[in-house]
Amino acid sequence: MKKQKVSDAVIHRLPRYYRYLDDLYNKGVVRISSNSLGSKMDITASQIRQDLSCFGEFGQQGYGYNVAELRSEIGHILGIDKGHRLIIIGVGHLGHALLQNFDFEKVGFHVDTAFDVSPDLIGTSIHAVTIRSMDELEQYIVDYRPDVAVLTVPQHVAQPMASRLIDLGIKGFWNFTNVELSTDKPDVFFEDVHFVDTLLTLSYRISRP
Amino acid sequence: MKKQKVSDAVIHRLPRYYRYLDDLYNKGVVRISSNSLGSKMDITASQIRQDLSCFGEFGQQGYGYNVAELRSEIGHILGIDKGHRLIIIGVGHLGHALLQNFDFEKVGFHVDTAFDVSPDLIGTSIHAVTIRSMDELEQYIVDYRPDVAVLTVPQHVAQPMASRLIDLGIKGFWNFTNVELSTDKPDVFFEDVHFVDTLLTLSYRISRP
Repeated sequence: MKKQKVSDAVIHRLPRYYRYLDDLYNKGVVRISSNSLGSKMDITASQIRQDLSCFGEFGQQGYGYNVAELRSEIGHILGIDKGHRLIIIGVGHLGHALLQNFDFEKVGFHVDTAFDVSPDLIGTSIHAVTIRSMDELEQYIVDYRPDVAVLTVPQHVAQPMASRLIDLGIKGFWNFTNVELSTDKPDVFFEDVHFVDTLLTLSYRISRP
Repeated sequence: MKKQKVSDAVIHRLPRYYRYLDDLYNKGVVRISSNSLGSKMDITASQIRQDLSCFGEFGQQGYGYNVAELRSEIGHILGIDKGHRLIIIGVGHLGHALLQNFDFEKVGFHVDTAFDVSPDLIGTSIHAVTIRSMDELEQYIVDYRPDVAVLTVPQHVAQPMASRLIDLGIKGFWNFTNVELSTDKPDVFFEDVHFVDTLLTLSYRISRP
């Protein structure tokens, strides 16, 4: 497979490709042309061909893409088969919602455990995930070496908590706090979930006359 | 202001511009060059100039952008000043999290009320938002004409609920259900929140050797 520097814009489109291909795959679709895929995703066929060319040769002129193959290739590029293990920091309403409704396994993440400060939660389980005391954080990470932390803590503790986790070796943060986190370590990544962006896009669309 | 067809890619970048400019504004920054803004946002200065040129003339060659002005212009383009009114359908953990932590007013949305089927919730309030019975939905919408519905209902009721709301005149959906909704009405918009996209982007980044 070719290697080249992949732009952030392409990286941000990859999960969408995966979602659409996964959906087609689950519906039993075997092949799809870049035109049909583009019209579903509201992007041009040539954009699709250009994006995918960053990662190698896919599809066959005139035959389109094999859905199962392309889904699996893009899943591989996204690291879905890497067996990432994550911990959830903060089990408020959002943490609960993620534990109850979000299918982490489907995208290759295993939820090891969750942490909270509330005595009412500590020792309980949600969907077979045990909630532990924040006091056990250091020892747990040293013992089990998870890769990723989901941050759903209050804003004022977001950066201190991230720094604490980085010092313990966490490399990836799925950040729901709306706080812009920082670190001087180049191998640590933050992915921020900004609910507001989609609401503002909706605002734009319904505001046009 | 010039009018032209604005691409989806530009529309999806607008909320990010707004978020960054709002942050700079709150920090008291008065002017910013397209280079500095671009390096903060990890896009090129020429991309910024090209995106903004879809909406008119902003900034001054050699002087950069006035932060307060550009923030307010982009807010206006996004419809933040339109006074949208929304209702929340489904007050499970995610609905609770939104009601408790999400600042709707900051982006120009007023939360009118929320609806749920649980007798334990009906009649209670969260942050001064009353939770009503789903049975009152029709009458409420007829009486108060909200614009937008936030959908946080279980997947199997997502499409029937959306269709019911569309028949009642709801034009915009902030859709957290992960169900792809459809309608034959061209003036109805769905904005889907796909948590999974950012998690997959994180997976990509931490999977590179």
